[in-house]
Amino acid sequence: MNLNETHDPKAKSWIDVASDSHFPIQNLPFCTYASDYAPHGSIAVRIGDSLIDLYELCHAGLLKEADHHFACDFQEVLEFGGRAALTQIRKQLFRLLLTDNPDLRDNVEVRAKVVTPVENAEILLPMTINAFVDFYSGINHASNVGRMFRPDQPPLLPNYRHMPIGYNGRASSVVVSGEPIRRPKGQMKAPDSDSPTFGPTRELDFELEMGFLTGKGSEMGEPIPIAQCEDHIFGVVIVNDWSARDVQRWEYQPLGPFLAKSFGTSVSPYVVTLDALEPWRIQGQAQEPAVLPHLQNPGSSHFDIQLEVSIQSDKMSKPQVICCSNTKHLYWSFAQQLAHQTSNGTPIESADLYASGTISGETEDSYGSMLELCWKGTKPITLQETGETRTFIEDGDVVTMTAWCEGEGYRIGFGEVSTKVMS
Amino acid sequence: MNLNETHDPKAKSWIDVASDSHFPIQNLPFCTYASDYAPHGSIAVRIGDSLIDLYELCHAGLLKEADHHFACDFQEVLEFGGRAALTQIRKQLFRLLLTDNPDLRDNVEVRAKVVTPVENAEILLPMTINAFVDFYSGINHASNVGRMFRPDQPPLLPNYRHMPIGYNGRASSVVVSGEPIRRPKGQMKAPDSDSPTFGPTRELDFELEMGFLTGKGSEMGEPIPIAQCEDHIFGVVIVNDWSARDVQRWEYQPLGPFLAKSFGTSVSPYVVTLDALEPWRIQGQAQEPAVLPHLQNPGSSHFDIQLEVSIQSDKMSKPQVICCSNTKHLYWSFAQQLAHQTSNGTPIESADLYASGTISGETEDSYGSMLELCWKGTKPITLQETGETRTFIEDGDVVTMTAWCEGEGYRIGFGEVSTKVMS
Repeated sequence: MNLNETHDPKAKSWIDVASDSHFPIQNLPFCTYASDYAPHGSIAVRIGDSLIDLYELCHAGLLKEADHHFACDFQEVLEFGGRAALTQIRKQLFRLLLTDNPDLRDNVEVRAKVVTPVENAEILLPMTINAFVDFYSGINHASNVGRMFRPDQPPLLPNYRHMPIGYNGRASSVVVSGEPIRRPKGQMKAPDSDSPTFGPTRELDFELEMGFLTGKGSEMGEPIPIAQCEDHIFGVVIVNDWSARDVQRWEYQPLGPFLAKSFGTSVSPYVVTLDALEPWRIQGQAQEPAVLPHLQNPGSSHFDIQLEVSIQSDKMSKPQVICCSNTKHLYWSFAQQLAHQTSNGTPIESADLYASGTISGETEDSYGSMLELCWKGTKPITLQETGETRTFIEDGDVVTMTAWCEGEGYRIGFGEVSTKVMS
Repeated sequence: MNLNETHDPKAKSWIDVASDSHFPIQNLPFCTYASDYAPHGSIAVRIGDSLIDLYELCHAGLLKEADHHFACDFQEVLEFGGRAALTQIRKQLFRLLLTDNPDLRDNVEVRAKVVTPVENAEILLPMTINAFVDFYSGINHASNVGRMFRPDQPPLLPNYRHMPIGYNGRASSVVVSGEPIRRPKGQMKAPDSDSPTFGPTRELDFELEMGFLTGKGSEMGEPIPIAQCEDHIFGVVIVNDWSARDVQRWEYQPLGPFLAKSFGTSVSPYVVTLDALEPWRIQGQAQEPAVLPHLQNPGSSHFDIQLEVSIQSDKMSKPQVICCSNTKHLYWSFAQQLAHQTSNGTPIESADLYASGTISGETEDSYGSMLELCWKGTKPITLQETGETRTFIEDGDVVTMTAWCEGEGYRIGFGEVSTKVMS
């Protein structure tokens, strides 16, 4: 593990940070927010309940190593500077925000331009997503699905432990936390019916996933060696991969999920860097049988991130937690996913989103979808406050996912992705 | 059918057009080419062996109805003006290029800027592709695949005649005719082996498809009614959907094709508008059982486009035609594909590519892939000139697809997508 000053648990900022905040000085995740002079978005980092505008900071000469590109296009920095540039920027921001650094703290004029209370900002999608790939790396989820839909066969298909199974999703419908999702219409066919019908899905589900956004791209025909894959990762967000199960059942043979997944995918707005996650690196579970050499990724290639899903119907006054899970249940690491993705020479671009697949734990209260939590509708969840029950998500329900790494006396968090379902 | 002056078979241009050209004055397809002042691409139409630069034409005041956006960003014209704007531009170009119109013909100075011999131009990808969706609408191909891989079941799965089956592909690896494709590496597993290997595919295949590019986008949550779908289509190109069959066999369960398809997709550079194709509209084959109302698309919703694939090994002096097919073998129309795609509210964007799926005819010499032509490797093709045989595509082979509509004494053509395979 490569710990440095930015991981010091005792470090404090001159900006107020509540003790239970997801955004202490050790985190500094990136986001995009709308402001008067940049309605389409400015880049900021979040600390406590404040946003630090990177453009303004550059403009004031306080982000000294960033070159002129920075001020115009953060994505160019990522694309050309890669992870090293990102690390440098994060270190500078960390120092600038430390309690005893007066450079920004005492410069009232610049502070007024640079620091914005998050409650005054409209937080946007962190990047316009170029491509969206959804993996299937949660081994408990894949096993549960196998048990439900292929009960007479082994739960995992023969290829599962040999490669990170995935499929291309739809980038144009990726939206940020807070944007409602409309219940989609689709084709479905009841088992006892001869022909399909078209109408609103009756089996709207969430999927609890984590995803990484790419910074630096790659060239066509040039696979990324697994040891270099993390250099291409900008950071990590929470992903709710909305699914219409009845549509999926009817459409998915032989080419996989399509419209059952493409109507909307929600992500959290704060891009947490691998640098911030460094202290929570862990070994993944043992991979047996051994994977092929180009996918071998020994050492602490996984992360210990706690995950939680809650639901709140429109009759409830507060959310009810229905799932607690952890990214340690991913069989394949981020680096393995990206090495596999590019192993055939597919070029990646900056602002690609690679989601993990549903992250279910081993116990029934840790399953990352309603499909599993309610076992294909056979075990409804009761919402304690109102006595309502759910097998899938109903109109008016708000589904909220949150994620954090637990430190001693602080958390490195992802905020949340919270979405209301509309008819 | 809505035929107008631009479909007059007798119309001639003052620009030379060979009698067998794909690009007479009745066609006027759009393309992007690199020039000195615009290395990243200028928009042109092709006529005969010449390119007509639309920016220069605007600048000279000869494309009068186009507003100032045009000169800056053709994609904006498409996006905001839709098909109506495209029709207007095409009509003006047609009139300007007619034999007896002196406006451009006799303006030597402007002509020198506007008209470029195609041999002096580098033809680029027509648009940077936002999203790539690959359908499976060739019913003979789908039936052949069923017969090969599910011999004990009906050739078509139960959903096939109820919706245009498709999946999301990878936009970042879409390249233009002329760009070589490298044989990809991938994971594959021999039937008699316990574990997979990683290496160059041994079953590299082409797929003969046609695809449409979108002009005007749509809003999230707003399905496009089928009667409006063609308003969103910019035009049509030939698509070679390269495939690695051995990789596909091992990876595709349960989420569909992924790396077997994402290493490269080749398209022809000339975007032929639906306006140009109007005289070749035909009824599709009868859809039985009747499709759901939102997919009903009566009338002449299909096109009669002739298709041809040839192959030339590096020992051959000229290509050998190995497949003759026709777009009439598509079960689902372009409009049905787009209506289905957006039926769940997925937004489309300008420059999305929707490919048809492999277009095989009914006879063995009309199959649109090596998989079918050689029936899973059991019936090799002999290359007559050299006596070489092929079951899949070898390094050094050039695969060329061409497409055209046959008129009386002229053709409306798509040019070609021609690709050399490299090791």
